[in-house]
Amino acid sequence: MDCIFCKIVRGEIPAQKVYETDKSVAILDLYPLNKGHVLVLSKDHYERVVEIPPDVWQDMALAAREVAKGILKAFDPDGYHLLINNGDAAGQEIAHAHLHVIPRFYDDGVAFGWRHLKYDEEEFKEYGDRLRQALGD
Amino acid sequence: MDCIFCKIVRGEIPAQKVYETDKSVAILDLYPLNKGHVLVLSKDHYERVVEIPPDVWQDMALAAREVAKGILKAFDPDGYHLLINNGDAAGQEIAHAHLHVIPRFYDDGVAFGWRHLKYDEEEFKEYGDRLRQALGD
Repeated sequence: MDCIFCKIVRGEIPAQKVYETDKSVAILDLYPLNKGHVLVLSKDHYERVVEIPPDVWQDMALAAREVAKGILKAFDPDGYHLLINNGDAAGQEIAHAHLHVIPRFYDDGVAFGWRHLKYDEEEFKEYGDRLRQALGD
Repeated sequence: MDCIFCKIVRGEIPAQKVYETDKSVAILDLYPLNKGHVLVLSKDHYERVVEIPPDVWQDMALAAREVAKGILKAFDPDGYHLLINNGDAAGQEIAHAHLHVIPRFYDDGVAFGWRHLKYDEEEFKEYGDRLRQALGD
């Protein structure tokens, strides 16, 4: 398989591996948002998090929490993100789902374009209804 | 406890609850990045993800994956983020760890200020070493 993350998992491309379980591997992101930025990968290939089997996803989540602890200890950041971008519109660049663990510092100059939209009252309930229905409530 | 998310969990503040397990609750974010934006909360109060007990964190992660499936079904977005912001420098606004599930659309006008820094070769290995050491490798 031609996936760069699969090649890293198989050891065919060198990487700075920092953590590993039987199902997951964590490596330094070669082009980090901040230095110390880590990617947690499933060893098997899945494109989207919704396709990852529950046990593998839970293993990745636990690995990411351990990696966050390691980042706190190693780099003493002022915060961190755990982030998955899935799909083109979310900026997914490699079609093998990966969980970013990103240290943040007060002076790092990163600015996420966060914004706060508002619902009107009826619309808020309507969005809730649509989602509950989709989730089989 | 004066935490707004704890009050929502206890039903003292109304919310659009869309999903629930024995350990986690998912609600619509009242001020969404995009409409349909959901927050997954642990029922018990923890400020940071690294403080959440492993079983609770794994429950939240699984709930978030289910919510993402629901968002795909309900709103047909072109992508989505799973995101935790922990610490002031990462933009954490409420001191009760919460996992965002955010639908993204090609034309939504959201622009995360992503960037790609570079390491020199020695530095890349050094960051890996520091993290491996912190993680007890």
